[in-house]
Amino acid sequence: MTAADFQSFGESVLGHNWKMCVGTGRLGLALQKEYLEHLEVVQRDIHFSYIRGHGLFSDDIGIYREVEIDGVKQPFYNFTYIDRIFDSFLDLGIRPFLELGFMPQDLASSNQTVFYWKGNVTPPADYDKWERLVKTTLGHFLERYGVNEVLKWPIEVWNEPNLVNFWSGANQVEYFRLYEVTAHAVKAVHGELQVGGPAICGGADEWIEAFLKFCSDRQVPVDFVSRHAYTSAPPTKKTFEYYYQDLAEPEDMLKQFSGVRDVIKRSPFPQLPLYITEYNTSYNPTNPIHDTVFNAAYVARILSEAGDYADAFSYWTFSDVFEESDVPKAQFHGGFGLIALHSIPKPTFHLFAFFNRLGNTVLYRDRTMLITRREDKSIVLIAWNLVWGKDKQYDLTIDVDLPVAWSDSFVLSESIDEHHGNAWAVWRQLGRPRFPSREDVSILNKAARPRVDTWREKTQVNCMHLRLILPKNGVKLVTVQQIHDETPTYAGLDDSLLVSYNEVEVDRLH
Amino acid sequence: MTAADFQSFGESVLGHNWKMCVGTGRLGLALQKEYLEHLEVVQRDIHFSYIRGHGLFSDDIGIYREVEIDGVKQPFYNFTYIDRIFDSFLDLGIRPFLELGFMPQDLASSNQTVFYWKGNVTPPADYDKWERLVKTTLGHFLERYGVNEVLKWPIEVWNEPNLVNFWSGANQVEYFRLYEVTAHAVKAVHGELQVGGPAICGGADEWIEAFLKFCSDRQVPVDFVSRHAYTSAPPTKKTFEYYYQDLAEPEDMLKQFSGVRDVIKRSPFPQLPLYITEYNTSYNPTNPIHDTVFNAAYVARILSEAGDYADAFSYWTFSDVFEESDVPKAQFHGGFGLIALHSIPKPTFHLFAFFNRLGNTVLYRDRTMLITRREDKSIVLIAWNLVWGKDKQYDLTIDVDLPVAWSDSFVLSESIDEHHGNAWAVWRQLGRPRFPSREDVSILNKAARPRVDTWREKTQVNCMHLRLILPKNGVKLVTVQQIHDETPTYAGLDDSLLVSYNEVEVDRLH
Amino acid sequence: MTAADFQSFGESVLGHNWKMCVGTGRLGLALQKEYLEHLEVVQRDIHFSYIRGHGLFSDDIGIYREVEIDGVKQPFYNFTYIDRIFDSFLDLGIRPFLELGFMPQDLASSNQTVFYWKGNVTPPADYDKWERLVKTTLGHFLERYGVNEVLKWPIEVWNEPNLVNFWSGANQVEYFRLYEVTAHAVKAVHGELQVGGPAICGGADEWIEAFLKFCSDRQVPVDFVSRHAYTSAPPTKKTFEYYYQDLAEPEDMLKQFSGVRDVIKRSPFPQLPLYITEYNTSYNPTNPIHDTVFNAAYVARILSEAGDYADAFSYWTFSDVFEESDVPKAQFHGGFGLIALHSIPKPTFHLFAFFNRLGNTVLYRDRTMLITRREDKSIVLIAWNLVWGKDKQYDLTIDVDLPVAWSDSFVLSESIDEHHGNAWAVWRQLGRPRFPSREDVSILNKAARPRVDTWREKTQVNCMHLRLILPKNGVKLVTVQQIHDETPTYAGLDDSLLVSYNEVEVDRLH
Amino acid sequence: MTAADFQSFGESVLGHNWKMCVGTGRLGLALQKEYLEHLEVVQRDIHFSYIRGHGLFSDDIGIYREVEIDGVKQPFYNFTYIDRIFDSFLDLGIRPFLELGFMPQDLASSNQTVFYWKGNVTPPADYDKWERLVKTTLGHFLERYGVNEVLKWPIEVWNEPNLVNFWSGANQVEYFRLYEVTAHAVKAVHGELQVGGPAICGGADEWIEAFLKFCSDRQVPVDFVSRHAYTSAPPTKKTFEYYYQDLAEPEDMLKQFSGVRDVIKRSPFPQLPLYITEYNTSYNPTNPIHDTVFNAAYVARILSEAGDYADAFSYWTFSDVFEESDVPKAQFHGGFGLIALHSIPKPTFHLFAFFNRLGNTVLYRDRTMLITRREDKSIVLIAWNLVWGKDKQYDLTIDVDLPVAWSDSFVLSESIDEHHGNAWAVWRQLGRPRFPSREDVSILNKAARPRVDTWREKTQVNCMHLRLILPKNGVKLVTVQQIHDETPTYAGLDDSLLVSYNEVEVDRLH
Repeated sequence: MTAADFQSFGESVLGHNWKMCVGTGRLGLALQKEYLEHLEVVQRDIHFSYIRGHGLFSDDIGIYREVEIDGVKQPFYNFTYIDRIFDSFLDLGIRPFLELGFMPQDLASSNQTVFYWKGNVTPPADYDKWERLVKTTLGHFLERYGVNEVLKWPIEVWNEPNLVNFWSGANQVEYFRLYEVTAHAVKAVHGELQVGGPAICGGADEWIEAFLKFCSDRQVPVDFVSRHAYTSAPPTKKTFEYYYQDLAEPEDMLKQFSGVRDVIKRSPFPQLPLYITEYNTSYNPTNPIHDTVFNAAYVARILSEAGDYADAFSYWTFSDVFEESDVPKAQFHGGFGLIALHSIPKPTFHLFAFFNRLGNTVLYRDRTMLITRREDKSIVLIAWNLVWGKDKQYDLTIDVDLPVAWSDSFVLSESIDEHHGNAWAVWRQLGRPRFPSREDVSILNKAARPRVDTWREKTQVNCMHLRLILPKNGVKLVTVQQIHDETPTYAGLDDSLLVSYNEVEVDRLH
Repeated sequence: MTAADFQSFGESVLGHNWKMCVGTGRLGLALQKEYLEHLEVVQRDIHFSYIRGHGLFSDDIGIYREVEIDGVKQPFYNFTYIDRIFDSFLDLGIRPFLELGFMPQDLASSNQTVFYWKGNVTPPADYDKWERLVKTTLGHFLERYGVNEVLKWPIEVWNEPNLVNFWSGANQVEYFRLYEVTAHAVKAVHGELQVGGPAICGGADEWIEAFLKFCSDRQVPVDFVSRHAYTSAPPTKKTFEYYYQDLAEPEDMLKQFSGVRDVIKRSPFPQLPLYITEYNTSYNPTNPIHDTVFNAAYVARILSEAGDYADAFSYWTFSDVFEESDVPKAQFHGGFGLIALHSIPKPTFHLFAFFNRLGNTVLYRDRTMLITRREDKSIVLIAWNLVWGKDKQYDLTIDVDLPVAWSDSFVLSESIDEHHGNAWAVWRQLGRPRFPSREDVSILNKAARPRVDTWREKTQVNCMHLRLILPKNGVKLVTVQQIHDETPTYAGLDDSLLVSYNEVEVDRLH
Repeated sequence: MTAADFQSFGESVLGHNWKMCVGTGRLGLALQKEYLEHLEVVQRDIHFSYIRGHGLFSDDIGIYREVEIDGVKQPFYNFTYIDRIFDSFLDLGIRPFLELGFMPQDLASSNQTVFYWKGNVTPPADYDKWERLVKTTLGHFLERYGVNEVLKWPIEVWNEPNLVNFWSGANQVEYFRLYEVTAHAVKAVHGELQVGGPAICGGADEWIEAFLKFCSDRQVPVDFVSRHAYTSAPPTKKTFEYYYQDLAEPEDMLKQFSGVRDVIKRSPFPQLPLYITEYNTSYNPTNPIHDTVFNAAYVARILSEAGDYADAFSYWTFSDVFEESDVPKAQFHGGFGLIALHSIPKPTFHLFAFFNRLGNTVLYRDRTMLITRREDKSIVLIAWNLVWGKDKQYDLTIDVDLPVAWSDSFVLSESIDEHHGNAWAVWRQLGRPRFPSREDVSILNKAARPRVDTWREKTQVNCMHLRLILPKNGVKLVTVQQIHDETPTYAGLDDSLLVSYNEVEVDRLH
Repeated sequence: MTAADFQSFGESVLGHNWKMCVGTGRLGLALQKEYLEHLEVVQRDIHFSYIRGHGLFSDDIGIYREVEIDGVKQPFYNFTYIDRIFDSFLDLGIRPFLELGFMPQDLASSNQTVFYWKGNVTPPADYDKWERLVKTTLGHFLERYGVNEVLKWPIEVWNEPNLVNFWSGANQVEYFRLYEVTAHAVKAVHGELQVGGPAICGGADEWIEAFLKFCSDRQVPVDFVSRHAYTSAPPTKKTFEYYYQDLAEPEDMLKQFSGVRDVIKRSPFPQLPLYITEYNTSYNPTNPIHDTVFNAAYVARILSEAGDYADAFSYWTFSDVFEESDVPKAQFHGGFGLIALHSIPKPTFHLFAFFNRLGNTVLYRDRTMLITRREDKSIVLIAWNLVWGKDKQYDLTIDVDLPVAWSDSFVLSESIDEHHGNAWAVWRQLGRPRFPSREDVSILNKAARPRVDTWREKTQVNCMHLRLILPKNGVKLVTVQQIHDETPTYAGLDDSLLVSYNEVEVDRLH
C-alpha cells in the first residue's frame, strides 16, 4: 500500500448499509430487562437504524384473539405489549422493521409451529380476518406513533416461506396469495407505507424471480426485495446442546448478495432496494462459531463490502436473549448474539463497534483492510486476518503508507484476536460455568475488552508508514491522529527530575 | 516461598487500617459534581470508612459570619452547605473525619492565609466565640444526623500547627490553648465524642510528647493522636507548574509511623489510637510523581505494613478535584488524587482497588508481596516491584508455592506497570493536552485499565507453583481459584469441529 | 377518643406482619422490565420482606427438561432464568418465598393446565425425579446464594391442592404424598430449611387439620402452615373481560385468619407459624374492585388487625404485570396489582405506603383507625371510611384528642378517596383508553397522587384535638409533629411588607 | 369571550422568546451538583435555549492568571473549569449566552469588587492583554466546540456598566472603549460571531441611544442590543437577611421593553434584535417576593406579551444556588431561583412549565389569559389573577366559549395559588426550618405540586363553555381535549355491579 495505491483508488463516501438493521429474537423477548440492557449497549456503541424479528402476531404478544360475545366469535385486538415494546425501541433510537407474522393461533389454519416458542407457521384460516388484522394493527401504529414515523418502517410479509418449517408446505402459490392480500391491505392503510418480500432464505433465488414476476403480472405493490443469507453447510454433528457445521468463505456470502441484486436488475422492478433481512455465518443458535473471534474476522469483510450489493443487511442477532432452541442453557451456548448473557460483548460486537468509529471518507479497501479518513483528518482503518484452523501461517503483516499532512502521529490500536477480547476463551479456562457467579461475570467482562496499544510515530511529509501484524483471527481498529504537542507550554517541565524515569521506555504502551 | 515458609509465617487477619480514611481537598469542593463522581468511583472500588479534609470553618462553606443586628455584632451560623456536603458523604457510605479549622474570617485574629483558596490560619480573636462555634456546629450535627452516627466521627483539632504557614507562628502554647478550649467544648456537647490532635506534620514528634504531657498535666480530654507523614525532600526544582523532589525509601515512612507509636507508648496515654491523618510520597500537589506507576509501587508496601503501627492512615487525597495550588492547570499536573480529572484512575487508585480485593486471612507477607486467602479458599496476592530509575535490573521474578487444596487452578492476573494501566504515559504520547477533548478522555480511560491475563495451572497436591515476573514498577493482583470444570456436562461438545480451532493456543490469554 | 381512651388502651409495638410478603404473577414475568420497575417502586415505598408467586418449575423458566443423550432420557437442569430473577429480587431487597410448583411438562403425569400461561397442575409422573428436581434446585440456590441467605427462604409445597383446577382431582392423598416426598427432600438438602403447606384456598380448613395430623402421624417435617383468603362470592356476572362479585365484610377475612389459627392451636403443632400466602378482596384478576378506592378502604382494617392472627399475610399481588387471564387487555382491567400498567399506583398501593410510614408504637386501634407514635414523638395515624355503595351517609367524622407534649403542631394530611388519588376514575373520565398515549399516562400519574393538606394546630398541654372528616372510601394518613418555630431567628422578617400578603389566608393549605 | 371574540382575534403563532434564555448565578456555581440537578429539572420541564450569567472571567473559574516565567510576567490561560461547565450545559441541551466579564484580578486596574463572591468590576489595566484574553478564550471555544456551535452563542460585553457598583464610575466613555476593543476582537476571531451590548440596567435608555450612535460613528460591530428590567422600587426595609420593596405593575415592565424597542427603531440600526438579558420583579436575591405565588401571577403577563417587543427575555435566575448575598441562609430566603434549595420548585417555575405546554397557535390573548391550540386540536390555555394584598375582591371569574370540533371534552386543570403549589407557605407553617431535614424536604416537595382537577364537559357543536374561577394570585393551566370514548368496546362492562358505586360521584375529581 503506497501513495500511488491510494491515488489509484480514489475517495468515496462510507455507506451505512451495514448498520441499517439488526436482527432480534422473537419480539416478545423485548419486554425483558436484560434484552433491553443489551440493546442499549448496542445502540450506544453501534447505533443501528432498524431492528427486525419474528413473532409480531404470535400469541405471546397477544395482539389477536377471537372471543365469543353474545354467542358470536369476534376478533379482539390487544396492543398492550407491542406498544410497550415499540415505545422501548424508539426510546433507544431504533425503529421497527416490521415482519408480518407468524399466525395467531385463533386465526391459524392448522397447528404447525416452529421453534421452542411455538410460532404458528400456517396460512390464515380466513384471509379477510388476516386483512383486518393487518389493517387494524398498522392503523393503530399510525395513530400511536404518527404518520411521519410509521412511513419509515419497512413492512416485510412473513419469514422464509420457501422453507417447510416456516410456511406450511413451502407453498409458493399460497405465499403469493398471502403477499397480495397483505400488500393491498398495507397500501389501503396508507399509500406510502413500504411493503416487500419474499423474505426467503438463501439458495432459492428463483423464488425472487417468480415473486417479482407475480407482482408485475398482478400489479401487486412491492417496495423492496428481501432475502436471507448464511454460509454454513448442513450439520457435521448435532446434539441437544450443539450444532457444528462447515462454512463457506466470506466471498460466498458476497456472491449471494450480488446474485440477488442481479436477479432484481433483470426483473420488472430493476430499481428496487435489496434488504438482506438476516445474515450470519451459521443459521443455528447453538453453533459455538458465533462466540468466537473467528466469527468477527469472518464478518469483517461482509461489513466492508456487502453494501456494494445490498441496501441493508441485518446481522442475525444483536443478543443471546433468544429462545428458538429453548432457554439458553449456558453462559456461552453458540447463540447468534453480538452480546452474550450478562451483557458480555462477543468479538463480533467489537467488530461492529470498530466499524462504527470509521471516518466517512473511504481511502482504500481490499480483502483484509478498509482505510478511512475522519473530518478532523485523522485516519481510521480496520484490518483483519481470517484464518482457518489448519493453516500453518497465522500472522498477517500489512505495510501501508498512510497519507497524512503532519509530522507527528499518535497511533491508537485496538485489537481482538484469539488471545484478546475473547471472553469465550476465558470462559473455557474457567471450566465453562453454565450459570456463572457474579465474580465469574466480572472476570469475563474484564477479559472481553479489546487490547489497547498506543505509540507515537514520526512521519515523513504526507506519508506515515504503518506496519500492522495481525495474529490469527485478529481484527484491529487503528486510529492515526496528528499530535498537537503542548509539551513546550509547560513551564519548567523536566521529567528527568522524577525519581523513577526513563525517556524511551514508554514509547509503546500496552 | 515454599510450604515451609507459609507454615513458619502462620495465619493472621488482614486489618482494614489502610482503608479507614482518605483525604480530600477543601470540604467546599464537595459541593461539586465531578468531586462527587470521583468519590462514588472510589467508594465503589475501595470503600473507605472516613474522609478528612480542611476548611470546615472556612468562609466558602460559610458556617460562621458575624452580622450587625440593631447595632450589635452577633454570630450567624449557616449550615446550608455543610449539610449538603455531609448528606452527600453519608449517601456514599463514607463518614466525616472532622478537622476543626481553619478560622472564619470574622473570628480570625489576623489575615494570614494559606493556599490559593485562602484558608485563614490564625487563632480565634475571641476564644469564647470559638467555643460557641464548636458547640453550635457539633450540636447541629447531633441534631441532624443523630447521636449514634456522630459519635463515630473523630474530631481533630486544627491542621499542622507546627508549621508557620498553617498556624500563625507555629506557636505551641497557642495551639495547646486552642486544643484545650476545643476539647472541653467537644466533651460538653457529648461526653463520648472523640477528640484528638495535634495533627502535626512529620519531623516534630517532640510536639506529640509535649502535647500528651500537656493533656495529662491539665486533664484535657484526648481520645487519639494524629500526625502526618510524607517522604519527600525539599524541592530540587520548583516552578509555577511543577515541584520536583527527591524521596526517601518506603521504609522511612514505616519508621515514621512506628516512631510515633513509640512516643505514644511512652506517654501518659500508652493505649491511645494513632491516626496518620495524611500521608503520601510528596506533600506537594504539583509533583508529577503522584501520577506515576512508581507511586503505586511505592505506596504498596505502606498499605501492606503500616497497619502494624497506625490504627488508620489516610492517603492524601482521593481526587485531583483540588485547589491548594490554584485551579488544576492540566489534565495531569501532579495532583494528589487517586482519580485524575475527567474520572481517569491513576495507578495508585488501582493499587488501592487491588488491596480491596484481598482475602481476609493473611498467609504471608514480605517486602514485595502480600498473600491472602478468601473465605471460598481462593488465594489472592499482591506483588510489586519498586524500581528507582537508574537501576539496571528492572524485572523482579518471584517463585512461590501456593497452598491450594485442588488440582486445577484458574489464575487471573491484573497488572499495572510502566506500559499498562498508565494513563499519564499515554497522555504524554498524546502531546500532553492540557484540556483534553472528549475523544482524548476516551483514549485515556481505555489506557488507564490494568492489563488482564488469565490461564490454567495444573497443581500438585496442596501446592501450586506460581512464577511472577514483575516489570519495572509493576504491581500485580493475582487470584488463584479452583476450577470446577463443568465441561463434561456439555453433551456432544467437541471444539475440534469448529472451523478455526487450536487446542493449545488459548492456554494463556491477554 | 380521649386521653382516658388512650390510657386504657396502653402501648404496644407495631408488628410488621402486614409487610412480610407480597404476591406476584408467575415468576417468569420477573424477567420483564416493567415488572421490575413496579417492584422497585413498591420496595422504595413499602419494602416487603418476601415475594411469592407460582411457576418456579413451569416451562417458561425452564428449570427442568428431559433430553435424550445416547438414547437415554435424562434430566437437564437449567438455572439461567431463575438465577437472573432471584438476582433481581435480592438486588431490590426482597427475598423469594419459594412455592414448589407447578409441574414441568416433562415430569407431568398428564396434560391438565391452569391459566392462560398453562401451568401444569398434575402430580409428577415419577416421584424420584421430582425429589431429584427439588434437591438439585435447592442445592443450586445454596451454592449460588449461600446457606445464610437460603435458610431465610420459606419453602411452600404446591398451591391450592384443594381445588380441582390447581391439583388434579384435588386429591388429598396425592397431595400428602407429594408433601411428604418434598419435605424430606428439602430437609435432606439442609436440615434447617423451612418447609410448609398445605397452601389451600379458604373454606376448607379441614384440610389443615388433616394435613397436620398426617405430618404428626407420619413424622413428616413441617415448619409453617399456609393458607389463602379471599372474601368474594361466586360471580354475579362474568365475561371475557370482566368478573363481578359480591363481597363479605372485612371481618369475614379476619375470622378466616383467626379460624386457621385456632385449628393450628388445637393441632399436634400448636406453635407453628401461620402464613396467609395469598389474600385479597376478589380472587379474580378481572374484577375492577381491585382498581378502586373502596378496595383500599376495605383492606385497611386487614392491615391493621390481621397480624393478630397471621405471622405473615401476603397481598395478592404487587403488580398488574400479570397473565393468568391472558395479556392485560386495558390500562385498567381489574388486575390484582398495587401498581397498574405504566407504573400508575392504585389506591391500595397508597394504603400500604401509608402503613409503611406509621411509627413503631401503637397508641390506639379500632375498626376505623390506627394511631401510632414515632421515635421522634410525632403522632402518625391512619383512618378509613369503608362505605358500601348504597349507603346514604358517606362522611365519617372522627374526633380525637392526641397525646402530644408540645403546644404547636404541624399537621400533614395525605388522603385518597373517590375524588383524590383515584387514577381509575380519571381514566374513566378520559373514555377508558385501552392503550393510553404517553400524554394520557402523564395525566393519570398526576391524578394518582394523594391529596395533601397541611395546617398548624394550637395545642392544649398534653393534648391536641383533631377532627377528621373522611369522605366515602377515604383513607387518610395524618402526621402530627411538633413545630420547632425558627421564625424569631430571621432578623428583620416582616411578611407584611410583601406586596401581596394576608396573614391568615394560608392557615390551611391545599 | 365568545366565538365572535375569537374570530376578531384571528390566529397567530406562539413565539418562543420567553424561553430563549434564563439567568444563572456566577458561572463558577455550575460546577456544583445541586446547581446541575436544578438545571436538569428546568430543562426537562421548560427547556430554555440559552443560559447567561456573570463571572466568565472571574478568578474562581480561573481562566486568566499572570505568572512569572524567567522573570517576565506572562498570561496563563486555564480552561479546565469553563470546559467542564460548558460541557455540562451542552449535555443538558442549553447553550451559553456569553457575558464577557468580570475582570480577572491579574488584569484589573483596581480592587473594586461587587457581591459576596467579589467580582472585580474595574476596566482592564492593559487593553492589549484584555483583547488577547478575549481572542484566546473565544478561539479555545471554537476549537473545542466547533464553529457551527459557537456561532450560535451571543456575546455580550460586560454587565450593567451604567451602575457604579458594576463598572468603576459607571464611566460611559470607558465602557465604549471596552466595547470597541472587545467587539473588534470578537470579529477578528470569526466575522460571524455575534457581539452586542450595552447590557445596562433599566432607567437609562439614553445609554442605548449613545451606544448605538457610538457604534455607528466609529463603525464598531454590533449585532444586538441588550438591557435589563426590574419593576421594584428602592427598599422599604433592608436587613442582612431581607430586602423588602414596592413594585410597579406588570405593565411597567412591558413599557420598559417597548421603550427600548422604540429607541432601537429610531437608531442607526433599526433592525437590531433586542435581548432583555435579565428581568424579574425585584432585583434583590433576598426579597421573599420571589418565593411567592404572587410572583408567578405577576410574571404571567410578561411571558404572555413581552415577546411582542423583545427577541429574548431572560428570567433572572433559574436556581437558588446563587451567592451574590453570601451563601443562602435558609431553605427559602427570597432568592431569584425558579427552583429553591433541595430542588423544590417555586410557583414561578410552574408558570414557566405551564407556558411550555401551550400549543403553537394562539387563538386569543388578553391581560389575564392566553388561549392556544395544539396540533392535535386540543385547546390549552393559561389564566391568572394577580391580586395586590389589600384588594377586597380576590376571585376572578372567567367565562369563555372555546372553539372545539367535538361533543365530549376531557378537561384537565392544573393550578397554583396561595393554597396550592405553594411550598413557601408550607415552609412557614413548619416554622421556617432554615436547614430542613430530609423529612421536611419530602413534605415541601409534596406541597409544591400544582393542584390537579379533571372533569368531563358536554359540548355544543363548535363551542365548549368553560367557567374558570381563579383565587387570589392563582395561575391555571387548562387543557381541553376530545374524548375518544372507548367505553362501548369493553364487553360486559357494568360499573353498577361494583360493591361500592355511584355513577355521578366522580364527575369532577380532585
